[in-house]
Amino acid sequence: MKILVLNCGSSSIKYQLLQMNDEVVIAQGMIDRIGEEISKAKLELANGEKYITELSIPNHDIGVEYIIEDLCNPTHNIIQDKQEITAVGHRVVHGAEVFSKSTTLTAEVIAQLEKCCELAPLHNPANLKGIYAAQKLLPHAVQCGTFDTAFHQSMPAHAYMYGLPYSYYEQLKVRRYGFHGSSHRYVSQQAAQLSGKPYDACKTIVCHLGNGSSISAVLNGNSVDTSMGLTPLEGLIMGTRCGDLDLGAAFYIMRKENLSIDQFDTILNKQSGFKGICGISDMRDMKQAAAEGNERAQLTLDMLAYRIKKYIGAYAAAMQGVDCIAFTGGIGENNPDLRLQVCKGLEYMGVEFDEQANKQSGNTEYIISTATSRVTVMVIQTNEEIVIARDTYELITA
Amino acid sequence: MKILVLNCGSSSIKYQLLQMNDEVVIAQGMIDRIGEEISKAKLELANGEKYITELSIPNHDIGVEYIIEDLCNPTHNIIQDKQEITAVGHRVVHGAEVFSKSTTLTAEVIAQLEKCCELAPLHNPANLKGIYAAQKLLPHAVQCGTFDTAFHQSMPAHAYMYGLPYSYYEQLKVRRYGFHGSSHRYVSQQAAQLSGKPYDACKTIVCHLGNGSSISAVLNGNSVDTSMGLTPLEGLIMGTRCGDLDLGAAFYIMRKENLSIDQFDTILNKQSGFKGICGISDMRDMKQAAAEGNERAQLTLDMLAYRIKKYIGAYAAAMQGVDCIAFTGGIGENNPDLRLQVCKGLEYMGVEFDEQANKQSGNTEYIISTATSRVTVMVIQTNEEIVIARDTYELITA
Repeated sequence: MKILVLNCGSSSIKYQLLQMNDEVVIAQGMIDRIGEEISKAKLELANGEKYITELSIPNHDIGVEYIIEDLCNPTHNIIQDKQEITAVGHRVVHGAEVFSKSTTLTAEVIAQLEKCCELAPLHNPANLKGIYAAQKLLPHAVQCGTFDTAFHQSMPAHAYMYGLPYSYYEQLKVRRYGFHGSSHRYVSQQAAQLSGKPYDACKTIVCHLGNGSSISAVLNGNSVDTSMGLTPLEGLIMGTRCGDLDLGAAFYIMRKENLSIDQFDTILNKQSGFKGICGISDMRDMKQAAAEGNERAQLTLDMLAYRIKKYIGAYAAAMQGVDCIAFTGGIGENNPDLRLQVCKGLEYMGVEFDEQANKQSGNTEYIISTATSRVTVMVIQTNEEIVIARDTYELITA
Repeated sequence: MKILVLNCGSSSIKYQLLQMNDEVVIAQGMIDRIGEEISKAKLELANGEKYITELSIPNHDIGVEYIIEDLCNPTHNIIQDKQEITAVGHRVVHGAEVFSKSTTLTAEVIAQLEKCCELAPLHNPANLKGIYAAQKLLPHAVQCGTFDTAFHQSMPAHAYMYGLPYSYYEQLKVRRYGFHGSSHRYVSQQAAQLSGKPYDACKTIVCHLGNGSSISAVLNGNSVDTSMGLTPLEGLIMGTRCGDLDLGAAFYIMRKENLSIDQFDTILNKQSGFKGICGISDMRDMKQAAAEGNERAQLTLDMLAYRIKKYIGAYAAAMQGVDCIAFTGGIGENNPDLRLQVCKGLEYMGVEFDEQANKQSGNTEYIISTATSRVTVMVIQTNEEIVIARDTYELITA
C-alpha cells in the first residue's frame, strides 16, 4: 500500500511517497516558490536520482497536480497510476484543543479545521489548500490529517495555561499548544529505544532546533511541556523569531517607535532572533562569522546555547530529572559545538558528555554521552513524514 | 549615626530610621493612600509601640515632612532634632545600565535618574519625589540611592539580551534588567552564611515571592540571571501580573478584542496573574478558596509552584548546579505548602526536603532541607532596608 505525505506551506509543498507497511520512501520532493514567476520542483527517487525543474506553479492545486503527474511519469518508474495512492497524510499545523491525535479528514473535520485557521493564519490555510487539492485530484484516496499540536495535548493545565484572565482561555482558546509535535513524538520514541528504556517509563527532553525551534519534555510517552505557545513565536530564539520576551519590553518598544500590532508582529517574526541580533539568520553563516571574530554572531550563539540549557534545566525539574536528552532538526543535528556548549555543566543532573562521540557525523542516530552517563544524550535525525505515514496507515487499516 | 531609609511608591512612603553601624531599627512606618482624601500614617517604635493616624497627605513633600516631624515628636522619644539624621538612603527602582551600585545623589546623578524614568514610569518618578522632598527638608543630610536593578548588572550579555533587533538595545536600552535587587543580594548573602559556604563560592537561587515576584541565580556573589526583565511584568505569575507569555498570544488577544497597547498593558499588569486566573489576587484568600474546592484557585497555585520549579531548574542549569535555594518575601516566607510543592521532585539536583522543618514558623531564617541534603533549602526573611542603610553608611564613611 502506498501513502503520499503532503506538507503544504504558504509557498511550498513537500512530499514523500511511502510503501507501507515496510516504510520505504519510494520518492520524495518539494515545490518551492509557489505563486512566484518561476517555481522550482525537486524530485528524488529511491535510487538517489534527482530531478530539478523550473516552471510556473501559480497555486497549490496546480502544485499537487504536478506532483501526482510527476510521480506517475513512466520515465521515473515510481507508480503507473495515481490509483495506486491509497491514502494521503496531510501535515496540519494547528489542531487547537479539538485534535489530540491524527484523524481521517471528513467534511465535518475539515469544517473544524477551517475554524482553527484563526489560531494559525500563516499555516492552516496552506494546509487546507493541500487537502482540497488532494481531495479533488485523488478522490479515491483516504485523506488523513496529522497535527503539529496533537502530541502536546497531553500537557497538564498548569503547564499550558497562561497567567491571563481566564476568559481568554474560555472564549478565545488562548493557551499553550506547542508545535513540531510529530518530530517531538518521533524523536522521543527513538530516544527511548536508543537508550534501552521503555518509552512509557522514560523522561526525555527533545531539542528540535531548525528554522523554527522548540523543546519538549516527554514523560513516559506524553508531552508534559513545550517551549512554543499559542503561536510558534514563544521559546527559543530562532532564525528570525524573538522567542521569550518581556511583554513590558514589547509595549515599551511599540510606544517609543510608534509601531502597530501588525508592524511589530512582523518585526518579531521576521526581523528578530539570529537575524535581529547579528544580522545573519543562517546558522552556518553565523558560525562562520563568529569564527572570524564577529562578536554579535558569537553573542547570538551564546544566547541560543544558554536558552536551550535553561529549558533543559526547567524540563528536568518539571519531570523530576531526565533520562534522555535528544538533539534533532537541522541545527540540532549538525552543530557539535552548540551541543557541547549546551551540555557542558549539566553534570549535576547526571550528564557525562562524550566530546569525541559528539564529533561524529554521517549516522542518523548516535549517543554523545559516555557509557556511564546517567543521562543518555544523543543526536537523532527527525522524521515527521514517517509519523504522518504511520498514523495514516493505522487510520485506514484500523 | 542615624540613617533614614525612604522607599517612595506612587501613593505610599515606607521608611525606617536605623542607628548605624550597629544596625538597630529605632523606628519604622509608612504612609498609605497619599493623594486620597484620607491618608493613613503608621509608626512603630523599637519597643513595639504602634501609632496609626488618619489625616490628609496630598503629596510626597508633605508626606516626608510629616514623617520627619513624627520622628522628632518628643512624645515618641526617637530623635530630638532632624539634624540627627546624617543621611537618607533612597530606594530607586530603575537604574538602567548607568548604576551598578549604590551612589551619592549628586545633581548630576539625579539628572541621570530623571532619564531613567522612561524605563520605569510607575516607579522612578515617585522615587524622585522622595529624593526632592528629602533634599528640601533635610538639606544637611547626604542623600544616597540604592537601585533595584543594580545587583543584576553583573548578568552576562547572553542572559540579559533579548532576541530582538540589536538597535532596540543600542538606541532604546531594551534588555533584561531585573528588580528586587536589594532583596536578592541580602538573601543570597544570608543564604551563603546560613549554609556555611563562602559567599564568593556559592551557587544560590533566591525565590523572592511577594506582591511582585522574581527569582534570581546568584553565582559566587554575582547575579547571573533573574526572571524579571526590562519591566517587572516578565517571569512568574504574580498577584495581578501575567509573567511569561507568548507575544503571539498577546497580539492575538489584542486583535480579537480590539485592545490598545495601554488597555492591554493595564490588563496584563492589573487584571492578570492570580486575579486573572481565579479572580483572587491575595495568596491567603486563594489558598482558602482552593482548600474549599475552588478548582481555579487550585490551578493558580499549581501554576505558581510549577513556574517557580521550572525557574529553579533553569537557574540550576545556568550555574552548573546549585548549593542553596532560598525562599523569601511574603509568599515565600509564609507558605510551607507552596515550598513543598516546588521542592518535591528536585532530588535529582541534590535536594532532600525536610517536611517537618518546613512547617516551623516564627524564625526569620531557617533551613528546610535535611542535614545530608547536597542543596541547602531555606527560608530567609528579606530586609531591603538594611541593604540600603548599609550602602548609605558605606558611602558616607568611605
